[in-house]
Amino acid sequence: MTRPHISVIAAAQNASKRLADRDTPFVMNDWYVAAFGEEIKDKLLARTLLGRRLVFYRASDGRVVALEDRCPHRSMPLSAGTLEQDTIVCGYHGFRFNTEGDCIEVPSQASCPKNIGTKAYRTHERGAVVWIWMGEAEQADLSKLPPQDWMADPAWERSQGYLGLQASYVRLHENLLDLTHLSFLHAKSFGTPDYAKAAFETEIGDGQFALLRNVVPTTLPPVWGIPTGLTDPGQAARIVRSEFRSLGLHEVSVTFYDCHLTENARPQFRIRTAHMPTPETATTTHYFIVHGRDFAQGDAATTRFMHEQLFVAFQEDVDGLALQEQALASTPAEDLYEFSVAADAPAVAMRRYVLARQQKETRA
Amino acid sequence: MTRPHISVIAAAQNASKRLADRDTPFVMNDWYVAAFGEEIKDKLLARTLLGRRLVFYRASDGRVVALEDRCPHRSMPLSAGTLEQDTIVCGYHGFRFNTEGDCIEVPSQASCPKNIGTKAYRTHERGAVVWIWMGEAEQADLSKLPPQDWMADPAWERSQGYLGLQASYVRLHENLLDLTHLSFLHAKSFGTPDYAKAAFETEIGDGQFALLRNVVPTTLPPVWGIPTGLTDPGQAARIVRSEFRSLGLHEVSVTFYDCHLTENARPQFRIRTAHMPTPETATTTHYFIVHGRDFAQGDAATTRFMHEQLFVAFQEDVDGLALQEQALASTPAEDLYEFSVAADAPAVAMRRYVLARQQKETRA
Amino acid sequence: MTRPHISVIAAAQNASKRLADRDTPFVMNDWYVAAFGEEIKDKLLARTLLGRRLVFYRASDGRVVALEDRCPHRSMPLSAGTLEQDTIVCGYHGFRFNTEGDCIEVPSQASCPKNIGTKAYRTHERGAVVWIWMGEAEQADLSKLPPQDWMADPAWERSQGYLGLQASYVRLHENLLDLTHLSFLHAKSFGTPDYAKAAFETEIGDGQFALLRNVVPTTLPPVWGIPTGLTDPGQAARIVRSEFRSLGLHEVSVTFYDCHLTENARPQFRIRTAHMPTPETATTTHYFIVHGRDFAQGDAATTRFMHEQLFVAFQEDVDGLALQEQALASTPAEDLYEFSVAADAPAVAMRRYVLARQQKETRA
Repeated sequence: MTRPHISVIAAAQNASKRLADRDTPFVMNDWYVAAFGEEIKDKLLARTLLGRRLVFYRASDGRVVALEDRCPHRSMPLSAGTLEQDTIVCGYHGFRFNTEGDCIEVPSQASCPKNIGTKAYRTHERGAVVWIWMGEAEQADLSKLPPQDWMADPAWERSQGYLGLQASYVRLHENLLDLTHLSFLHAKSFGTPDYAKAAFETEIGDGQFALLRNVVPTTLPPVWGIPTGLTDPGQAARIVRSEFRSLGLHEVSVTFYDCHLTENARPQFRIRTAHMPTPETATTTHYFIVHGRDFAQGDAATTRFMHEQLFVAFQEDVDGLALQEQALASTPAEDLYEFSVAADAPAVAMRRYVLARQQKETRA
Repeated sequence: MTRPHISVIAAAQNASKRLADRDTPFVMNDWYVAAFGEEIKDKLLARTLLGRRLVFYRASDGRVVALEDRCPHRSMPLSAGTLEQDTIVCGYHGFRFNTEGDCIEVPSQASCPKNIGTKAYRTHERGAVVWIWMGEAEQADLSKLPPQDWMADPAWERSQGYLGLQASYVRLHENLLDLTHLSFLHAKSFGTPDYAKAAFETEIGDGQFALLRNVVPTTLPPVWGIPTGLTDPGQAARIVRSEFRSLGLHEVSVTFYDCHLTENARPQFRIRTAHMPTPETATTTHYFIVHGRDFAQGDAATTRFMHEQLFVAFQEDVDGLALQEQALASTPAEDLYEFSVAADAPAVAMRRYVLARQQKETRA
Repeated sequence: MTRPHISVIAAAQNASKRLADRDTPFVMNDWYVAAFGEEIKDKLLARTLLGRRLVFYRASDGRVVALEDRCPHRSMPLSAGTLEQDTIVCGYHGFRFNTEGDCIEVPSQASCPKNIGTKAYRTHERGAVVWIWMGEAEQADLSKLPPQDWMADPAWERSQGYLGLQASYVRLHENLLDLTHLSFLHAKSFGTPDYAKAAFETEIGDGQFALLRNVVPTTLPPVWGIPTGLTDPGQAARIVRSEFRSLGLHEVSVTFYDCHLTENARPQFRIRTAHMPTPETATTTHYFIVHGRDFAQGDAATTRFMHEQLFVAFQEDVDGLALQEQALASTPAEDLYEFSVAADAPAVAMRRYVLARQQKETRA
C-alpha cells in the first residue's frame, strides 16, 4: 500500500489525542522515585525531576532533604553552595537555608527577611529507594504509594541499577505493559521467539493496568535458565504478570517452573522487577530498577550474573525507546499517526488514565 | 557608507520574498536523487529526504524499495528492524511489512489488521543513481525526469561522489547558476582570475535556467590542463554552460580546446558534471555528484586525478555555503537583505520558479 | 517553609518585570568594547557584538575598521574573504568593499551599482581597548564614553585579559555592584569571611550606581597582601568602591593601607579594575578586563603574580554566572522569582535604568 487512507489516519490521530504522550504536562500529585537511598549522603546532590531542579542531602538525623535547587535571591543553584550542619549556604552571596527551605541568614545584613525561602519537598525512604511528592504538599499521602513488600523483605535477594533514558516516561510505561517486544527488541537477551505469540489476558481497572502471559512450554534464556536449573529445551513454564501500579512504579512478576512435573512436585522460582520511571524532562527519564528473586538466597555470584544479564536487556529498551523518541520528534505532525492492536489495550487504557489525571490536576 | 537607505533595504527585502529560500516548504512533486545505486544493498539503509525519514533496501528482484522509516504501530524506525526475505520485521513488536509497505503480520495476534501500513515511495534507478518521487504517487511520471544520456553512455568516462551540505539546496542551485564565484571561492582549485570578468549570456525559460560563459583565451588550471594537454598560458578556450534542469539536477557542461588552432584542426575536450542536490532538512542537503568526460577513456589515473581535484573544489562550495547559511541564520530579520546583479538573473528566475512551484503545490 | 505565599511570589515577579534581564533587547546607542587594540591587525577578525556579526581590521593608516560581516549580495561572511589594500574582497563572488562599507567593485560587470554596501560602525581606540558605537551613527558622541584616565596613565601599571561568559551582561553588571559575594563565590581566591558583613553605603544617581564598602581591619588575601606587604592578620584596611559607569564599563577602585598607622604615616596602595562587558548574544558576553595599580611600578613579577591570581577569581565569576544563567533558563516561568535585599539597591536601580534606556530607544 501507499499510506493508509486519509480518513484512517485522521481517526488514528484523533484516538491518540486522548492518550498521554511526551507533550502531556507532568502529573505532579504523585509519588516518584527521586533517588536510591545510597545516593543521598551528607553532600549536595543536584537532580532534575518533572522539569524542576532539586537539590538533595541527608540531614544529620538521617532524613532526606529535598529543596528547589535555586536560591530565591539571585537564582544561583543551591547545589553549587556548601552544606554546613544541615543548612545550605548559597555559593553566591551566602544566604543560608535550613532543611525546611527557610532562609535563616543574609550575611550582608543583620536581620533576615521573613517570608523568603525555597520550596521544600516531602520525601519518603522505603527499602532501597527515596520517594518524593512533587505536587501540593497537603495531598502527599503515603497511602497513595503502592505497597512493595518484597522490596524490603529479607526472603528476597535484590540488586538495583539506574539507566538514563532519552525518551518520555509515558513510552517506558507503555513498553512495559506489552512484553510482546521480548521476542524482538530482546531477541538476543531475555526474549524467546514463542513469547510474542503466547496467549495473553489483560486487566484494566481504575488506575491499575496489567497484561498476563503464560508461555508454556518454553525454553528459558540463560538469565533464568542457569539460576533455576531449567535449562532443557521446552522444559519450562514462564508465567508473567506486567502491571502498572502507579505513575512511578511498574512491576513485572514472573514465576518459572518445570512444566513436566506435577503441580505439587515442582518447585517454583519467582522473580520481580520494580521499574520506576521518573520524568526528568518531557523527553528524558530517570529509570530506577530494583530486581529481586525468592531463590538462591545469599548466592552473590547468581545475583551478579542475573544483574549483568538483565541490564543488557534493559539497555536494549533504553536504546529502542530513544530511537522511537527521535522518530516521534522528527516526523512532521501531519504524517504522525499510530495504530493500536489488541495487546495494546492495557497501555492505551494507561495512557488515557495518565492524560485524565493530568487534565484533572490542571482543572483543580 | 553606513547601511543603505531604509527604502533601499525594504525594496530588497520585498524582492526576496518572491524567491524560494531556506524557509520555503519543499516541493514534493518532483524527482530527487535518493542514493547512488551502489549504496542500496540487501540491508536496511536509513536516510532523511525532504524532511521525511525513509528506509531503503534492494529487493531480491533488484528493485529499490523505499518506505517511510516508521512503524505505524509505535513509531519505531523500521531501519532498526531486520530484513527477512524482502520484508522488514520491526525491531520492537515484530510487525512485518512487505515491499509495498503493507503490514502483513502482527505476532501477538492471529490475524493482521487491514488498512495499516507504512508509506511506500516510487523509485527509479538510472545509471549510477536512484531517483525517488516524494510527492503524490499518481503524479510520478518518468517524463518529468530530465534526460541524462551521458550518465549511462559508455563513451563517457565517469566518477561519482557525495558531500553532506550544511545549507539549503536552494542556495546550492543558486551557487551553480552563477559560476562567477570560480575566480574567488575556487581561486586555489579550478578557478582563474579571468573567469569572473568574462562575458556571459543567460537563458531563462519555463523551469529551465542557464548561464553561459566563454573564457577565451584562458589558462587552464591543472585539473583540466593536465588531462587535455592544454597547459600553456593563454592557450585554451573554456566554454561553459551551467543549467538548472530540475529541482534535483543541475548540469554543468564545459568544452575545452586550443584557441590557437582553427575550428577544424582542433580537438574538443568535453566534460559534464551532474550536481544533484536533495534536501535533507530545510538547511541540510544531500549533494550527489556524477562527473564525466569524453576523452582519455579507460585512463584510470586521469579519472582519479580529476576526481580528487574536483572534490577539493566542491568541498570549497560546501564550506562556503555553510558559512552563508550561518550568516543567514544568525542575522536579525530587520538587518537581512540581499542585492542582486546582472549575473544573478538566472538564479533569481530559478528561485522565483521554485517558490511558484511550491505555492502551486500547496494550493492543490 | 514550603514555597513563599503565592501573593509574595507574584509581587516579586512583578518587581522583576521592571528590571532589565536576559530577555531585554540590547541598548544599541552606547559605547561598548569591541576588542583589545592588540587584537586588531591587518587581517580580518570576525566577532559578534550585541547580536550583530561584525568584521574588524586595522587600515594602513592605523584606524580600526568595523563592518557588518555579511556581503549584501549573497550574505557570505566578509571575514571569509581577503583583505587587499584596505578593502575586503568577498570570498564568494569577489564584491569589493572599502573602509566605509561601500561596494566599489562587482567583478562580473563593468560598473558597480551605487547604493549597495554593508554597514560601517564607528570605533574609537583609547588606551588598550577599542570602543564601538553599535547604534545610530549620528548619536555616536565621545562625550558619552566615561573617562578612564588611569587606563592610559604611565603612573599606573596594567595588565589585561579576556573571558568568555555564558551569561547575560546584565547579570555581570549586577554581580559587580554587590561585592558581598567575595566572601562566598571567591572564598578561596580574593574574598575573606568578613567582607560580606562589613558595613556598606550605596550611591544611586542617574545612570551612575555604586556600592562602597570599608573592610577595616581585615586580613588581605595573598593577591593583595604580598604585593603591598600588608601580610599580618588584621593589619589592613580595604576600602572598596564598585561603580557602574556605563553599559560597557564597571570600575572597581580599592585602596589598601595599614590600619595601625596614622593617616599621615601610612602609605596607600591603590588598584583599579575596569570590567568591560559587551553582550555577544542575549546569554553570552565578551568580558574584557583591564587591571591597574599605582605601586610596584615596573615590577613584572608582581604584575604576573597579581594577574594570575585575579583571573582565578574572575573565572569564579564566569563559572558562577553560567550556573545562574542555566538555572534562569531551565526554571519554569511560574516558578521563577527573585527577592532583593538592601545590598541589591544599586544593582536593582541599575537594572531599572538599563530597561528604561532600552524602552526609550525602542520608542524612538
